[in-house]
This record gives sequence, C-alpha cells and structure tokens, in this order.
Amino acid sequence: MILVNGQASDRVDALDRGLAYGDGVFRTLRTAARAPLWWSDHYTKLAADCAALALDCPDEAVLRGEVGRVAGEGAALAKIILTRGTGTRGYAPPTGQTATRIVMGLPSPLHAHPEPADGITARWCTLRLAQQPLLAGIKHLNRLENVLARAECNDPAILEGILCDTDGMLIGGVMSNLLWIARGILHTPDVSASGVAGVARTRLLRAAPRLGLDTRIDRFPPAAILAAEEVMICNSVLGVRRIAHLDGACCPSAGWSARLNAALHEETD
Amino acid sequence: MILVNGQASDRVDALDRGLAYGDGVFRTLRTAARAPLWWSDHYTKLAADCAALALDCPDEAVLRGEVGRVAGEGAALAKIILTRGTGTRGYAPPTGQTATRIVMGLPSPLHAHPEPADGITARWCTLRLAQQPLLAGIKHLNRLENVLARAECNDPAILEGILCDTDGMLIGGVMSNLLWIARGILHTPDVSASGVAGVARTRLLRAAPRLGLDTRIDRFPPAAILAAEEVMICNSVLGVRRIAHLDGACCPSAGWSARLNAALHEETD
Repeated sequence: MILVNGQASDRVDALDRGLAYGDGVFRTLRTAARAPLWWSDHYTKLAADCAALALDCPDEAVLRGEVGRVAGEGAALAKIILTRGTGTRGYAPPTGQTATRIVMGLPSPLHAHPEPADGITARWCTLRLAQQPLLAGIKHLNRLENVLARAECNDPAILEGILCDTDGMLIGGVMSNLLWIARGILHTPDVSASGVAGVARTRLLRAAPRLGLDTRIDRFPPAAILAAEEVMICNSVLGVRRIAHLDGACCPSAGWSARLNAALHEETD
Repeated sequence: MILVNGQASDRVDALDRGLAYGDGVFRTLRTAARAPLWWSDHYTKLAADCAALALDCPDEAVLRGEVGRVAGEGAALAKIILTRGTGTRGYAPPTGQTATRIVMGLPSPLHAHPEPADGITARWCTLRLAQQPLLAGIKHLNRLENVLARAECNDPAILEGILCDTDGMLIGGVMSNLLWIARGILHTPDVSASGVAGVARTRLLRAAPRLGLDTRIDRFPPAAILAAEEVMICNSVLGVRRIAHLDGACCPSAGWSARLNAALHEETD
C-alpha cells in the first residue's frame, strides 16, 4: 500500500521536484504490530534532514499515522519519501509549499539476506564518494553514487560494498554504516563530508556506554578496519551484521555483533 | 502536456527510481514549429549520459516524436526525463528494464528573464561543488547542489550564480555553462569532475573556429574571468548571455556575446 499525501495512490505528480532534482529526503524503517520501530529516532532524523534542506517537515502524528496505515499485511518495512512538492520553474525552491509525503509499505528483504552463521561477505567499492559537507549525513534523494557503487558487483553472495571518499578515507557501506571494535572502542567513520548518518549508527553510539565501550568518530584509512577485533555494518533494516569476509580477507570475530545487535533492539522507540 | 511512456498523463509511478534515487537523466530544449531545436546534439548528449549510467536510451525517432507531440500550444520548451524505471529492491539497478520516458511541454521562461540591454547580473555562490568524475558532465537527476546554490539568493535582479568546486576552481553557472574570451581564445572550465557539459557549450566550442577563436578547456581560478574581455553564460534555453555585473563588479563588453549567440543559432539541428 502506498499513501501519497495521505491518499491511497501508486502515482505521484510528474512535476514533483523529488523526481526532477532529487529534491527531498527519505527513511526506510521496520514496522511491527502496525507501528514503526525506533520511531522517535527516525522522526528526529527526518526532521533534521528536512531542516538541512529547508524542507517543511510534516507533523509527527500525521506521518506516524500514515506509517501505521501502510504497515502490516506482509509489509515489514515502511519507506517515507518527503519532497519539496511540484514545480516547473527551475532550481529555485518554491516558497510556502508543503512537502509531498509518500509513505509505502514494503516486504522485508531479510529473506533475501539471511544472516549467515559466520557473518556476511563484503567487498571494497571502486567508486570514491565525493565530498559535499552541505549534503553529507543527510538521507536525501540524490543517491546515484550508491546506485553506481552497488552496480559494481552483482554477486548475490556479497551483501555489501564498503566505500571510501575521494581522499581514500573510510565512509561506510553502500546501504549501511560501518563500525568496528578495537581496543575496547567503538569506531565509526566521520560522515560530515560524505555518507549518511544512519539511525542504527546513532542508536549504537548512544548504547555504547551501556556496553562499556568508548566511541570514536573520526577519519580513518582503510587499514584501520584490518586491525579491528570485529568489523560490522548496521542499518535500520538489517540491524548489526558482522563482516566475516572482505574481498577474500577473513575478518576476526569477538562476539560484538550479537551484543551490539541486542543493544540496538533493547528499546523499540 | 505530459507524456509518460508515450501516454498522456501527469503522473508517474511512485516506485520510480528517478524519484527514489534520482536514477536518471534529463534535457531541457527549445522547440519551434512543433519540432525540437538542436535535436541532433540533444539526442547525442542524452544517449551519452544514458550510456554513462548504463541506462537503456530510448529510440531517437520515438523520443523526437514525443517532443513534437508536447511542443506548441504555448510550449516553447520541452523537457525529457529518462529514469531507470520502477524498483523496490534497493540500490541495485534492475536489469533488462526499459527506461521510463517523461516528455513534457513547458512555457518559455524567457519572459521572466528578458535580455537586459547591457547584459545580466550574476553572483558568486557560496556552495562549492563536490568532485565526482563518475557523474560530472552528465545531466543527471541528482541536482540538490544546484537547488541549494540557487536558494542562496532570491534577488530577481540576479539571473545566475557562478560556482566553483571544492578546490576553489571555476566550474559554471547554477543552470548554465560559463565561458569567456581572453586574448582571442574562448575559455570554458573543465567539467570532468564537477558540473554539466551542456549542449550550448558543445555547440559554441564547435563553432569557435568559424569565429576565428581558439578554445581552451582547463581548470581556472576565479581570477581568470576577471581578466577577460567578456564573460558569458550559455544554455539551451537562454542561449548566450553576457555577464555585465558580478557581485557588484562591472565586467567589460567586447561584442562577443552577440557573435557567439548568432553562431550558436546558425544551425537549427
């Protein structure tokens, strides 16, 4: 089921600026019992992303209600797209226009990505992410870099591609954030110039003290993860997944992915 | 009038990847007597942009026919959007899927931007364009940088903003390419890491020898245009426009914009 501005519809206006320019933001989140999981974090992030683009974020109760309407009936995920509405007059953002809301229920992709007992296989992407501080961190609709990076490899055994920026520094996965444990510290790359600051990453950084972990967010070279006790990816759909193989190299296991995954799911909001 | 895959419609599929990821390309072109101007150049560029993204470019005759159908009746412009079609399965491009074609007639914006007798007013943008060689030059649907740059200033007297990349080197206008004449040479910035290689720019580079002009495409600092005989912007809608004022500075005139504009329009295909 898809709701466009609250009305059941599978169509959007051909003049929507989300289509014309990618002028909008999105969220993909899990649902259970017809309600969104981690809603408080997802709405906070959505509102922050809207603010960064000077988009008018819809009311929380309205959006939450629409997610509830599309959830269930086999839809284990909800996707929310917010755009700057319609326009024909070029790049200038129209003023005083409410955002277009597209809320859809989606089947879970988890059956397509069962958790291997010994962790997932990842690869290094060739593409280097451009650096744009004004857009970094935001889950906006300009995702051609992700599309091209994902298209580099079509091996179904490889779940994720790991990306560096144009300086060769670690950023994250094509569809996930990257984290690792080394010397009792939870490490994750700085995403202030490239990449997305995902909600699962935010929740894990918040949960780290409960697990006795310090945190470090910084710019790291690729070699940093080769020295880790355990390397993982995370996002709101997959949770935490341990990387067991990275371009043929074996990555060690220290039991962190199960602990972090449990911490991630400790609270439902 | 809007045609979606050849059918009159003002709606597109809510699952279209053009909306989800900006996964597509576009063209804006002028029409006259129900036919596209500069069609050969526009189709060549469209096909090249599709190839760069591994998109299946529609047949030339089909697209040209659709542009003819939306042209006229007050529509002085046509916009073509091609996307990678629909998808719900994440960033991986679906294979064997034909592109979604959206072809629309648009009114001319020229009445909103009459040619001032002494040239246009431009400004320097604060935003610095990210550098992504895999996407640079392509007129793709990931245009948030243009939206943000355009939103920096809402003064109707200022027609265009001039952009540099993250190294501070000249790239072009928010909606146009930048060019200038100095020492008998037509200069225009290299757009192999940022910016768009527009059709008007291509036509002017091709026409330069007929005007006795050498050409130079390179990376230039902002100071390069301050030493020019004449600075101009160009695109397929506005043609060539001389910059008369740039953030308060006056830019000299040497008659080049009229000569280049004439050369640009010498051939209709």
